[in-house]
Amino acid sequence: MAEKKLRVELLSMTPNALELLYAAFRQCYHAGFVADMWPRLLNGEIPPEKQAGLVSRVLESGHDSPVEHVSFSFAVEGISRACSHQLVRHRLASYSQQSQRYVTESDMEYILPPAIARIPEARERFEAFMQEVGSAYADLRDILVAHGRASKANEDARFVLPQAAETKIVLTMNCRALRHFFHLRCCARAQWEIRALADAMLVICREKLPAIFATAGARCVELGYCPESERFTCGKYPLRKDMA
Amino acid sequence: MAEKKLRVELLSMTPNALELLYAAFRQCYHAGFVADMWPRLLNGEIPPEKQAGLVSRVLESGHDSPVEHVSFSFAVEGISRACSHQLVRHRLASYSQQSQRYVTESDMEYILPPAIARIPEARERFEAFMQEVGSAYADLRDILVAHGRASKANEDARFVLPQAAETKIVLTMNCRALRHFFHLRCCARAQWEIRALADAMLVICREKLPAIFATAGARCVELGYCPESERFTCGKYPLRKDMA
Amino acid sequence: MAEKKLRVELLSMTPNALELLYAAFRQCYHAGFVADMWPRLLNGEIPPEKQAGLVSRVLESGHDSPVEHVSFSFAVEGISRACSHQLVRHRLASYSQQSQRYVTESDMEYILPPAIARIPEARERFEAFMQEVGSAYADLRDILVAHGRASKANEDARFVLPQAAETKIVLTMNCRALRHFFHLRCCARAQWEIRALADAMLVICREKLPAIFATAGARCVELGYCPESERFTCGKYPLRKDMA
Amino acid sequence: MAEKKLRVELLSMTPNALELLYAAFRQCYHAGFVADMWPRLLNGEIPPEKQAGLVSRVLESGHDSPVEHVSFSFAVEGISRACSHQLVRHRLASYSQQSQRYVTESDMEYILPPAIARIPEARERFEAFMQEVGSAYADLRDILVAHGRASKANEDARFVLPQAAETKIVLTMNCRALRHFFHLRCCARAQWEIRALADAMLVICREKLPAIFATAGARCVELGYCPESERFTCGKYPLRKDMA
Repeated sequence: MAEKKLRVELLSMTPNALELLYAAFRQCYHAGFVADMWPRLLNGEIPPEKQAGLVSRVLESGHDSPVEHVSFSFAVEGISRACSHQLVRHRLASYSQQSQRYVTESDMEYILPPAIARIPEARERFEAFMQEVGSAYADLRDILVAHGRASKANEDARFVLPQAAETKIVLTMNCRALRHFFHLRCCARAQWEIRALADAMLVICREKLPAIFATAGARCVELGYCPESERFTCGKYPLRKDMA
Repeated sequence: MAEKKLRVELLSMTPNALELLYAAFRQCYHAGFVADMWPRLLNGEIPPEKQAGLVSRVLESGHDSPVEHVSFSFAVEGISRACSHQLVRHRLASYSQQSQRYVTESDMEYILPPAIARIPEARERFEAFMQEVGSAYADLRDILVAHGRASKANEDARFVLPQAAETKIVLTMNCRALRHFFHLRCCARAQWEIRALADAMLVICREKLPAIFATAGARCVELGYCPESERFTCGKYPLRKDMA
Repeated sequence: MAEKKLRVELLSMTPNALELLYAAFRQCYHAGFVADMWPRLLNGEIPPEKQAGLVSRVLESGHDSPVEHVSFSFAVEGISRACSHQLVRHRLASYSQQSQRYVTESDMEYILPPAIARIPEARERFEAFMQEVGSAYADLRDILVAHGRASKANEDARFVLPQAAETKIVLTMNCRALRHFFHLRCCARAQWEIRALADAMLVICREKLPAIFATAGARCVELGYCPESERFTCGKYPLRKDMA
Repeated sequence: MAEKKLRVELLSMTPNALELLYAAFRQCYHAGFVADMWPRLLNGEIPPEKQAGLVSRVLESGHDSPVEHVSFSFAVEGISRACSHQLVRHRLASYSQQSQRYVTESDMEYILPPAIARIPEARERFEAFMQEVGSAYADLRDILVAHGRASKANEDARFVLPQAAETKIVLTMNCRALRHFFHLRCCARAQWEIRALADAMLVICREKLPAIFATAGARCVELGYCPESERFTCGKYPLRKDMA
């Protein structure tokens, strides 16, 4: 039972991403066949800056469906089951998550919320409880095994594992889904943990594909105002009703 | 901290469901406009048995997209967060789930796995642990509030809540998604809890729309064989390789 | 070969729609079970205006996923295949469309674009051509039948049918998808035909569920500015860059 | 106005596809983090045959969600609008299609159905009609331009373009969607044109990722029987009711 920190690794992404987006955007308005233009996109005859310019302009005007052609696949560890439960609510994505039914959690790691970590008294209480979790899990597994339930012991014992229990997940999202994910999860209203995950993913996306992600982030960044109500706004952007 | 049992209530479903499915199937092959036929579908001039017959036959031959036009909305309580995490992996559905961030869980209820309930020693250990959870949650909330984190106390303290913690959810699925859900979750390989949920939903669906759900269930029911490997099959149906 | 006009009929919609949306929104933040509150929603103990107020407020702040629980099913006739091709690009929806493979189009009807209808010379040319289509279709079917291709004659002969060819379709969308559809298709940039379809659907949705659709329409209506570029804006709303 | 033949080009696909699928499958059941295993997957320490074996076995048992992590992006030309209308009904995919609203079709190319091509009389009638289409399109554009509708002339004149009109499209599908697409569209019941497209895509997919696509094809290939009714079966596989 030990604390685990967030780690986000990019496993794979669509290659020649900018060229593919440019080709997809262009095919909509172009009389020719983009497969014939493809080599000239790759060899720089059509300069990357020109490609990025078109892609950004069209995206900015709200025509975002072509950015779906490019996907990112991440491996993530060091998130809690509370966080993964929020994450998988984003349905336009693919997930392969570590199963608590098949993996024995005797050495369960956990996520320590920063607000708890900062208060020694809270941290102590939290960490003591995590040890109680370990005991309860081990005891229940032992009892279940002793009663002939070995093959199902994990899946029953795991009912005592906390929301804090660490999980690992491989996830793939296309750029449109990613931008939507950042809209919601880079917002100050998002829980700190999924926000940290979103921020880490955004850093990678921005580095790999700035034409799409330079302007990505919480919705306010794109809208120019905060869509939340007075009660929930973080105050960084004006409320919509306060716009001229 | 008390045990909670599964409860599934149908809140709403598409009205005139059979007629709508019949109309949708018919529109594909019919020269006229089904809106003109609609009154005769509703007043029984085209008898329900005839409608059901067509719908079942087309569905059986694998053309299942028209059954998407009809949806069921359920309210569910008495499932664990372990179960809801599995549930929301079904992406062709809509969910509105009780938030542990906004609802204080001082009187948290929990799901008791039947295998644990049946072993007195296991049950005792489990129930004792649930009381420890209650203490840890209350202690952490108190500490966080005392340190000025009142507004975020729930969302941080909930990290100690177990997978067993009860949750409530409103969910809507169309008939095609429901049939797929039953394929996977009425299977003996599914975890007991989501299987109980699926079974309860299937009972309701069958009663309300037998033309679609009389033949629904685990995949083997539809395939005529078990698609799992030797290691995982429950044995009720022959393996595919053992088919003639 | 005759002209056909748009007709949109609501076949079915989720009953108790406002109550269902209210229940779904409430379940997220409520400690109790909305199934227990359900009778009081239906009998007016919780007044519809109060329900509508909550639903509108939450929707306005951008939390729109709960509105997915309610769906509308329309039967549409009098749209061209050009229009239906645009329509089915909206992927979060279910469609059952009249098949040109299975329905013989000897009496094909067609959609006459208003701009062509307004210019007598254009209209005449268009209508004369539609008669040529009818001859070509009939001739090809006859030849194919004479050569023993009766069962496939429709699907081959239909290659001469125009984009103007009328089609009929049953479609189901949930309220979130509908609002997105209206964002894009009630916009002045949308083609006149799908815009007329969207407008007709919006009239029905507004009447049936004003809490969700009173504020629906093109994106500018919701954003308060036009997201298009200078070149494409219709001028009704200021461009984003011209906002203070 | 000239005939155009199908051409399918692979623009891009997820790199290290087999390794990514293996990593995704493994993460579900593995206690460690697949990002740590990733270098060993790439350098062959875990041999590709072993990876392919696991992936195929899990896929065969019906657990196909992990194959969503890998996508293929194709550029396609030489398909009719009849075919593209069928294609975009596959909703779990991304499309960027050449617009008849923005591209002038004065040199429209068309798809000639093989059954028509094989009958000289039919072919002659078809080709003569395509020239009539060209005249009607040109005449209508001229009239519209003369009446001050230059900017909308394409979108109105295109109503005379036939279903045979050639279109170009960039499309991205993940492996799960591709397998489903092949189930339906490699079937003898599919129209010849989309079947030719599906077959061409399958050839590429098989070459690039045999672990997933060696066994892909029409549903009968996977099921071991034909799910269609007696009336529609092609006879290559036994009907379900004729299975032991």
